[in-house]
Amino acid sequence: MELTGFGVGTKVAVGTVVRMPDPLPEPDANARVDGDLDAERQRALAALSEVARDLQARAAELDGPARDVVEASAMMAADPSLADAVAERTAIGKTAERAVFEAFESFRATLRSMGGYMAERATDLGDVSQRVVARLLGVPAPEVPHSDEPFILVAHDLAPADTAKLDLSKVLALVTRDGSPKAHTGILAAEKGLPAVVAVNGADRIADGATVIVEAGSGAVFVNPTQQQLANAKREIDRQAALAAAPIEPGALADGTRIQVLANVGKPGDGPRAVQLGAEGVGLFRTEFLFLDSDDAPSVAKQIADYTELLTHFSGMKVVARVLDAGADKPLAFLTDSDEPNPALGLRGIRVLKSREQVLRDQLTALAAAQAATGAELWVMAPMVAEASESEYFTSLARELGIQVAGSMIEVPSAAILAEQVLQSSDFISIGTNDLTQYTLAADRVLGSVAGFQDPWHPAVLRLIKIAGDAGEATGKSVGVCGEAAADPRLAVVLVGLGVRSLSMAPPAFAEVRAALRRVTLERAREVAAAVLQATSAAAAREIGAELLAAR
Amino acid sequence: MELTGFGVGTKVAVGTVVRMPDPLPEPDANARVDGDLDAERQRALAALSEVARDLQARAAELDGPARDVVEASAMMAADPSLADAVAERTAIGKTAERAVFEAFESFRATLRSMGGYMAERATDLGDVSQRVVARLLGVPAPEVPHSDEPFILVAHDLAPADTAKLDLSKVLALVTRDGSPKAHTGILAAEKGLPAVVAVNGADRIADGATVIVEAGSGAVFVNPTQQQLANAKREIDRQAALAAAPIEPGALADGTRIQVLANVGKPGDGPRAVQLGAEGVGLFRTEFLFLDSDDAPSVAKQIADYTELLTHFSGMKVVARVLDAGADKPLAFLTDSDEPNPALGLRGIRVLKSREQVLRDQLTALAAAQAATGAELWVMAPMVAEASESEYFTSLARELGIQVAGSMIEVPSAAILAEQVLQSSDFISIGTNDLTQYTLAADRVLGSVAGFQDPWHPAVLRLIKIAGDAGEATGKSVGVCGEAAADPRLAVVLVGLGVRSLSMAPPAFAEVRAALRRVTLERAREVAAAVLQATSAAAAREIGAELLAAR
Repeated sequence: MELTGFGVGTKVAVGTVVRMPDPLPEPDANARVDGDLDAERQRALAALSEVARDLQARAAELDGPARDVVEASAMMAADPSLADAVAERTAIGKTAERAVFEAFESFRATLRSMGGYMAERATDLGDVSQRVVARLLGVPAPEVPHSDEPFILVAHDLAPADTAKLDLSKVLALVTRDGSPKAHTGILAAEKGLPAVVAVNGADRIADGATVIVEAGSGAVFVNPTQQQLANAKREIDRQAALAAAPIEPGALADGTRIQVLANVGKPGDGPRAVQLGAEGVGLFRTEFLFLDSDDAPSVAKQIADYTELLTHFSGMKVVARVLDAGADKPLAFLTDSDEPNPALGLRGIRVLKSREQVLRDQLTALAAAQAATGAELWVMAPMVAEASESEYFTSLARELGIQVAGSMIEVPSAAILAEQVLQSSDFISIGTNDLTQYTLAADRVLGSVAGFQDPWHPAVLRLIKIAGDAGEATGKSVGVCGEAAADPRLAVVLVGLGVRSLSMAPPAFAEVRAALRRVTLERAREVAAAVLQATSAAAAREIGAELLAAR
Repeated sequence: MELTGFGVGTKVAVGTVVRMPDPLPEPDANARVDGDLDAERQRALAALSEVARDLQARAAELDGPARDVVEASAMMAADPSLADAVAERTAIGKTAERAVFEAFESFRATLRSMGGYMAERATDLGDVSQRVVARLLGVPAPEVPHSDEPFILVAHDLAPADTAKLDLSKVLALVTRDGSPKAHTGILAAEKGLPAVVAVNGADRIADGATVIVEAGSGAVFVNPTQQQLANAKREIDRQAALAAAPIEPGALADGTRIQVLANVGKPGDGPRAVQLGAEGVGLFRTEFLFLDSDDAPSVAKQIADYTELLTHFSGMKVVARVLDAGADKPLAFLTDSDEPNPALGLRGIRVLKSREQVLRDQLTALAAAQAATGAELWVMAPMVAEASESEYFTSLARELGIQVAGSMIEVPSAAILAEQVLQSSDFISIGTNDLTQYTLAADRVLGSVAGFQDPWHPAVLRLIKIAGDAGEATGKSVGVCGEAAADPRLAVVLVGLGVRSLSMAPPAFAEVRAALRRVTLERAREVAAAVLQATSAAAAREIGAELLAAR
């Protein structure tokens, strides 16, 4: 059986399936307890405290962050206000299962409405709720699977809390029924270098224990494959392993044209691995990690320490730091409004920072200090720039605070269309293909039902990138790509053909992208790009790219 | 005192202010009744039934739709499940005010989550809630203002329910503190030909009874104006009145180039007024009106009757019907998913229809039948087309069902960028500037905090329109604009300079736009457009346009 979905990365894996258990069904809203309401309350509260005890015992066996997560869950289960909320509901005749479900749901809704870090805790609360309801029903709680052998994980979708509990060193590949390549699971897979296929129609029909081949490059999942398919997969796995083991050379085309191969990093701790895999610098240092867990912006001193920790690994290399991109799928209670009907089209990125300039000043001050403390070449860039006025604002503030190189993300279509204007006041531009695709096609990057349009191969997106690339050539300034498009080896060649000269990606993609670049000249890359621009759909563009670049 | 905001239309009005009363503050969530809980319950329920009686008495004095609205409100106040929800809350010590507030809020949340027609009823429920709380507090209920004299309405914002209760024939102009030009209030003002200025900083400082000048063209509000300002306003009002009274000529430039001036209509009843004001046809017939009030799609017979009613007024003229644009701010319970995190980037327009083809087939069948029954020249178009494949799909279905002319809306940036590809399978394109602006600038059209970007004068939007205009010239096919940009007389000239040959707008804007077109040649329009395209912001573009087009 061959299933298809949207692939993340180019890797291939073969292994045995372990399924993430499905969530329990919602307890019946109309069921009523006719008999002893007090006994029902006792039953509910007993289950709550048993689960709290259980979780506490488990936490004691763990260390580090895993222990913290489980301990926090134990405390949630033991929360007296939650017990009150349950009792309120059994008092009016609801079943213990329903009362627990509703009480947790109302707490989760409150957390979600707070956004950011608190909203993420809502998922953990859901997990505790499932444990209590399972205990009341006398069934096993849906547990994040554990296996001593490497396995291929098949799930409806993965929540951040699931992945926190999963031993990812044992996971060979991910297959999900829901999700989109740009949502949490896809990003996680790219970062870890795990092959993944998401939004797989028929994923529910993959049995626990089945052997599957996951082919991320084509988005195919072969269930119970033939010997021939297994042999092909094995050959591809060997080829990829050899490539990854080959000596690291600087990114360049066959004719010697230099193309910088840079790393996307989300926290200081990502530095060493990026360097080890041969990063020539950092093309996208996301700085949200510092802000997500707090009620207010972190102090300048704390920021200096964290930025210095990352920059230290890149002495003599370029590090492009994106200042805080709050809003949309990264709400911050102290900065953003959670009531927007379409947060992706709301007050986010540089729009928020302009209205709260001190937050931006502090961040730029801390970044400048981190550069002074290390030998890294710091570049800073503003997210969500829509027009030249925002670039002017950001660049002049960066200069005032002692930063030499300041640029703009190109992710709003208007900024791509007007790239030449934006470059008048930006030292460089860096194209964020995920958001640029989302806005150009009007297709939410995290919404499965429009996943078919979230494809950076779309000729409309590539035409915008060409406008930006041409503007870079006209002004002699640097044009990079820091969206995951850069990690697709064939698309990387097309981007270079459109005028892009640096590619930033999750480090696991380096080897394949470097190899693909080495195979073409700039002239050839331009020919391929010109052909792809004439395609009428993302699928057609991808096919043209595959055809023109496969012939060797 | 001069205040500024975003203007809708070009009209000027002078008059006396009547303020929409501010909503009552939210009753204190922490207040607790220490004494007699049962007395508190009685107090709450008494207020509920008094309001129900009051509303019933008022309804008896009214006729037609106004009576229905008030009667529905009376029934809400008398709803026994609402009384139960109130009693549940007084039983645990909440004040009568808070219990009423919360009970209504929970009912409103339920309605809102149902989307569409039911969601609109949530606003009416809010009005009833305010009446009951006001009675409990012993203060007058915030009433939609009534005046026998014409007045200028100043409000935080207008809800659809407010406007339903307002005697709009007495309103000279609208000034709101919140809102955006593309949201409900702005659209209403455009349709009625009322001058409006929305998102006015300082609107709260305009006193009831003050004299103000509302200058929609510049977005200015003069409070307690000078004699000189009043004289200027009077002169402009007279000029506009003379223009409106002048004989109607077909839309054309000074050199005779024909530009069709068409009407945007939202329901069959809008036909006669459009014809009376000189519509040369309909450029945008929105068909959502048929679907919004129902749990399922209306029958083909019902659709034929409604379409025929409109088309009858336009015998021999072009009528461009847009098929159902469900989703985003127009959710339909039977078609769309209310859980999307960014509905504007979700499954809407042709994306929904493709997945529910029978709805589209029925609509096209009914439209074809209405054309056969009248002498109108029917054109149909698909909303939210993102690429050629969707245009191919729509056109071939329209042809199969006997419709000769089928086209695509250009409102997703990708469709503008690839307009030449879309035109391979579309007989015409019509640019929806509201959504095109929203996506190009990544700025929600209904969100006040990003209102500065919701401006079709933005050079990025105009450059996309030029790509579409060029594609029209290359293929010899018709390019129109049906967003409200067409109603701005100077912008209308710029659009023509970019290749647009038909302009569709709310009929009150016809006279000004026709006059503006008559003043320029095609060559001049192209020169102005070329200059405007070089601007670096919407404000700068608008200024260039004003400068180049004012000199006569």
